[in-house]
Amino acid sequence: MKRIAIDMDEVIADFIPEQLKRFNIATGKNITIADLHGTKLKYLHNDKIETIHTFQNDPTFFRDLKVMPDSQEVIETLSKDYEIFITTAAMEFPGSFTAKYEWLKEHFSFLSDMNFVFCGNKSIIHADYLIDDNVRHFKNFKGKGIIFTAPHNINERGYDRIDNWKAALDYF
Amino acid sequence: MKRIAIDMDEVIADFIPEQLKRFNIATGKNITIADLHGTKLKYLHNDKIETIHTFQNDPTFFRDLKVMPDSQEVIETLSKDYEIFITTAAMEFPGSFTAKYEWLKEHFSFLSDMNFVFCGNKSIIHADYLIDDNVRHFKNFKGKGIIFTAPHNINERGYDRIDNWKAALDYF
Repeated sequence: MKRIAIDMDEVIADFIPEQLKRFNIATGKNITIADLHGTKLKYLHNDKIETIHTFQNDPTFFRDLKVMPDSQEVIETLSKDYEIFITTAAMEFPGSFTAKYEWLKEHFSFLSDMNFVFCGNKSIIHADYLIDDNVRHFKNFKGKGIIFTAPHNINERGYDRIDNWKAALDYF
Repeated sequence: MKRIAIDMDEVIADFIPEQLKRFNIATGKNITIADLHGTKLKYLHNDKIETIHTFQNDPTFFRDLKVMPDSQEVIETLSKDYEIFITTAAMEFPGSFTAKYEWLKEHFSFLSDMNFVFCGNKSIIHADYLIDDNVRHFKNFKGKGIIFTAPHNINERGYDRIDNWKAALDYF
């Protein structure tokens, strides 16, 4: 059985709306998803990096994220033919571990927690496919990297791409 | 550069003394390391499994573990010639994530936290070597499994074995 490793933030967890909501409240600005075309909030507002880190290291931030449309149904379907692992770069926000675990247990209860991986450098992941919004994780990954479309990666080339979870079902 | 994945509990973190101390306090028994020859506390006292789980899911349990003798010096030496990852089966005790992270940051500060991996099923680990006290992790591991001697694994055969960290330095 082939194995698919799947990232969390911006892939199964809808990170950006919560990030923008908290950022706009904290700063009084009105940043929208359109402003993040080809970039990330931390680059667009590097002057507010401490504010961004503060709310992203708040456990409630990751616990409150919405589930990406169709991700539950599609991943449950894929899990019949593929071994599924959730592989998330949690080390950047050590305050997020328990919240991420609880979120996965609630929203992806059909997966075993033995298949959750909290890591940093994803070259440690042994899988046939890695679905991720950050192409940096593909560089030393031995399997096939697949970009999951997010505003910041819209201009990335050189990898297969899926725009949403319905497209993932067609891909596999 | 070849990569060595290293388990935490009973390999770099001295799990058993703290486990026995807390178990004996909680139950009034006097279990010693000699009683764990070829077994684990959870098998020896399956009737007390809830007690064992309760204190092992207490964050202070993992935070208070002593460092295994020579592990810091030897791993720092090995890190000059090998890429080192710490790969721990943290999903069994979700209350332990932050404590394990803080323990690693304190005692193995020469390693990047990008090289910490909290997982369950270690077949997801992509490495050349895995040093672990639990042979079950070697079954679907694609690299070479190396048993780190612990009371419970004393009768295991079929893999290379190192008895302590000084022996690890000779092995590599």
